Amino acid sequence: MAFKVGLLGLGTVGAGTVDILRDPFQRHPLLQELVIHKVGVRSLDKPRSVDLPLNLLTTDLDAIVSDPEIDIIVEVIGGLEPARSLMLKAIAHKKHVVTANKAAIARFGEEIFSAAAEAGVYVLLEAAVGGGIPVIEPLKQSLCANRIRTVMGIVNGTTNYILTRMQAEGGDFAEILADAQQLGYAEADPTADVDGFDAADKIAILASLAFGGRIKLAEVYCEGIRQVNATDIAYAEKLGFVIKLLAIAKRDSATDPEQLQLRVHPTLVPKAHPLASVNDVYNAILIEGDPIGQVMFFGRGAGAGPTASAVVSDILNIAALLKVGRGQVTQADGTPLLDPLLACSHQHYCTIAPLEDLITRFYARFLTQDYPGVIGKLGTCFGNHEVSLESVVQTGIRDGSAEIVVVTHDVREGNFRQALDEIKAMTTVASVASVLRVL
Amino acid sequence: MAFKVGLLGLGTVGAGTVDILRDPFQRHPLLQELVIHKVGVRSLDKPRSVDLPLNLLTTDLDAIVSDPEIDIIVEVIGGLEPARSLMLKAIAHKKHVVTANKAAIARFGEEIFSAAAEAGVYVLLEAAVGGGIPVIEPLKQSLCANRIRTVMGIVNGTTNYILTRMQAEGGDFAEILADAQQLGYAEADPTADVDGFDAADKIAILASLAFGGRIKLAEVYCEGIRQVNATDIAYAEKLGFVIKLLAIAKRDSATDPEQLQLRVHPTLVPKAHPLASVNDVYNAILIEGDPIGQVMFFGRGAGAGPTASAVVSDILNIAALLKVGRGQVTQADGTPLLDPLLACSHQHYCTIAPLEDLITRFYARFLTQDYPGVIGKLGTCFGNHEVSLESVVQTGIRDGSAEIVVVTHDVREGNFRQALDEIKAMTTVASVASVLRVL
Repeated sequence: MAFKVGLLGLGTVGAGTVDILRDPFQRHPLLQELVIHKVGVRSLDKPRSVDLPLNLLTTDLDAIVSDPEIDIIVEVIGGLEPARSLMLKAIAHKKHVVTANKAAIARFGEEIFSAAAEAGVYVLLEAAVGGGIPVIEPLKQSLCANRIRTVMGIVNGTTNYILTRMQAEGGDFAEILADAQQLGYAEADPTADVDGFDAADKIAILASLAFGGRIKLAEVYCEGIRQVNATDIAYAEKLGFVIKLLAIAKRDSATDPEQLQLRVHPTLVPKAHPLASVNDVYNAILIEGDPIGQVMFFGRGAGAGPTASAVVSDILNIAALLKVGRGQVTQADGTPLLDPLLACSHQHYCTIAPLEDLITRFYARFLTQDYPGVIGKLGTCFGNHEVSLESVVQTGIRDGSAEIVVVTHDVREGNFRQALDEIKAMTTVASVASVLRVL
Repeated sequence: MAFKVGLLGLGTVGAGTVDILRDPFQRHPLLQELVIHKVGVRSLDKPRSVDLPLNLLTTDLDAIVSDPEIDIIVEVIGGLEPARSLMLKAIAHKKHVVTANKAAIARFGEEIFSAAAEAGVYVLLEAAVGGGIPVIEPLKQSLCANRIRTVMGIVNGTTNYILTRMQAEGGDFAEILADAQQLGYAEADPTADVDGFDAADKIAILASLAFGGRIKLAEVYCEGIRQVNATDIAYAEKLGFVIKLLAIAKRDSATDPEQLQLRVHPTLVPKAHPLASVNDVYNAILIEGDPIGQVMFFGRGAGAGPTASAVVSDILNIAALLKVGRGQVTQADGTPLLDPLLACSHQHYCTIAPLEDLITRFYARFLTQDYPGVIGKLGTCFGNHEVSLESVVQTGIRDGSAEIVVVTHDVREGNFRQALDEIKAMTTVASVASVLRVL
C-alpha cells in the first residue's frame, strides 16, 4: 500500500522532511509506504539542497490540496496566509493534515479543527511546539488519564539562547541579541521571539490540549525579555535563581477550579528546579498532573532535523490509521467518527483568570534615596497591601541612589501592583528599576 | 458506549488504577465510558484502601480473562506466573491487554506479542518502564521517523536513590541500602534492583522498541551497584563526575551497524550531562536519534500514582481504538490487521555485540607499592594494549599502599581487560580496587 503525501513548502523544515522520507534505512518500515506525490514551492528556479525529480515540484499549491490522489497534506510554509486557506481547502477535500504552524493553529485552531471534525480528518501538529520533542502526542495519549495542573516550559530557543549567554557572559540584552542575529540564532526582526509572541502561541496550543478547551490567544498575558538586564541577572544569581522566559498554563484550584492562568514572562527560576539547567537553544516542557506528579520533556526546540522528525512522525501516525482503514470512519447516521484522543473535540473556551488575581512571588529592584528609613517605608507599604516579603536587601549604591532588591512570598499580583503604585509616588524612591516574577 | 475493564490485581498499582477510573473529573471525557467489570484478587477478606462494591471482587482470575463481557484486561499482579498465563489466556479470548509487568514482557515478550498478533489484539505497556513517564508510546509513535542511535537512562529508582544519598552523604553502600530498606525505598530482598536486573528488563524492552527487533534478556550485560563505594564516588566527584546506574542500548555504526550494545552498569557521568542531575527516585530516559538529536524524558519512575497514570492512559488508548471500531480489524483473507505503530511486529532477534568489543572510557583505581616507577609501569602496560590514558593521578596512601586513579580515553573493553590482567599479575600492584565505565 502506498500513501501519497503532498508537501506545501520546501524551506528548512520541508527539505528536512524530504530527507527523512527518502532515506528509510533503519527507520520504521511504514516509512517505505510513503510516497512524495507533489511539492508546492514559490519558485521552481531556486537552488535546493534536496535533489527531487523536477516533475514533483509545482507552484500551484491549490492544485496540491485538491489533488484527489493525495492522502496527507503537510503544511510547512509557515505564516498565517496562505497556510490557513490551504489547510482548510485540504480538509474540505478530506485530506489529513500535518502542520508545524504554531502561529496559524494558535489563531485559527477553532476554524481548522471544526472543519476537520466535520470532514472526518485529522490535523496533527507535533512539530508546532518544541520542535521534535514529543509533547503534543504525550499530552493527547500518554498522559490522558491525568488531571493536568500545570504545563510550564521554555518553548522558545532564541530567547533561551540569549538569556543563557547573558547569564554566562554578564552581557546586556541588546548586544547579545545583535550577536545572536549575526550568528543566525535570532531573526532580523526578532519581535516574535524576544517579545514572547512565539511562546504565547505555543502555550496556547499546549493549554488547549492539557485542559481540554479552546484558548483565545489575546488572553495570554505576554511579556518578553527586552527589559531583562545584566544587573538583574547578577542579583538573581546571588539569590539562587536563573532568569528564564517561561510559558505557563496552570489550573489553579485555590481560586476557581475552572479558571486558567496563562502567561509568558521572564521568571526567576530556582537553580535546583529542573527547568533552570535547560540552556542555549534547548527547550523543555514540564507537566504536572494528578496522579503522575512532574514529568519533563527536553530536547532541541527548533531546526530542520528535530522539526522534520516531528512532521514525519505525524505523517506516519496518519499512515498507520489509513493502513488499518481508520482514516475515514463513518457512523450509521453518516457523520464522521474520529479517535477521541487524536482529534480535537473541544467545544468551549477556557476561562482565563485576570492577571491581578495571579498568585506569584515577585522580585523588584528599587533605586531610592540613601537614608535609613527607606527600607521601613517600602516594607510598611507592602505590608499595607498584604504583600509579605521574603527578603529585602540594600545591595549598594547605583547612579547616586541606594539600590534595594525585594523578593516577596506568594502574593496576589493586584495587591503587589497597588503597593508598587504607591511606592512609585514616594519622593524617597527615584525609580522602580525592574519587576520580575519568581517561580 | 461502555468499555468493560477486567483488573487483575489490587495492590498498589491496582488500587491507583481504580482511584483514577472512579474519579473522572477534569480528566479525559473518554474515562467516563470505562467500567470496572471485575477485579481479581488473591483474598477477598484483605482490607483495601479502595472502596469497591464487593460483587466486583473475585479470586477466580481465570474467569476474568475468559469473561465474554470484558474488552480490556489490565494485568497488575506482577511477577512471572500466573501473570504470563493469564495474559496469554486473555489474548486467546481476543481481549486487549494493558500491563505494567516489565519482568514478564522482557522474558515472554515473543510469546505474548506473537499471540497478540495472531489474535488481532493490542498489548500496551507504558507502565513497564519509567512509571508514568511517557517513553514507550513516544518511541512507538512520536519518534518513529527517527533512526535511533541510543537509548540510555536511569530506569531504576531504588538504585538512584541509594547512589544519590551515597553522593550527598559520603556513606557506603551497605549502610545506605539498610536505611533505604527501613524507609521503604528498597525491598527486603533488594537483588532485582541493586544487581541491575530490573534495569536490564527495562532496557531490553526499550531496545526492542527503539531498534525494531527482539532481545534475548540473557544477552544484556548486567552489573549492579553493590561494589560502588564512597571512595570512588569521592574521586569521581573530584574528576567532575557523578556515579549513576545507567541502562544503555546503542546501535554503534562504528562497528557492525546491525549490532547493538546492550548493558546495565554503574557509570561515571560528567556533571554537565543531562542525566547527571537526575537524583533520588527520579528516572530519566535519554534518546538520541537521527535527525532529532537528543531528547530526554524525566519524572518519577515508580509509585502507585505515576504507574497508574500510565496504566489508565493505555486503557484509554485502547478504548479510543474500540470507539472508532478499530479494536479488531480483519483483512479480506480473515487474518487480523493491527496498527503497525502500536502493535509489536518484530520477527528477528537483534544481534548483541560481545562486551569485549565495546568502545568506552574506563575509570580504575589501583593500590600499589609506593615507589616512583609504578605509574610508568601501568602506563606502559596500558599502552602495549592500545589503551590510551586521559589521566593518571596518584591520589595518596591507603592501607599502606599508594593509590592510583586512572581514567582512559575511549578504548576497546577487551584490550582494557587484557591490560588489567597483566597489571593484576604485577608484583608491584597490590590490588585493582575498582573498575567503572565512564560515559
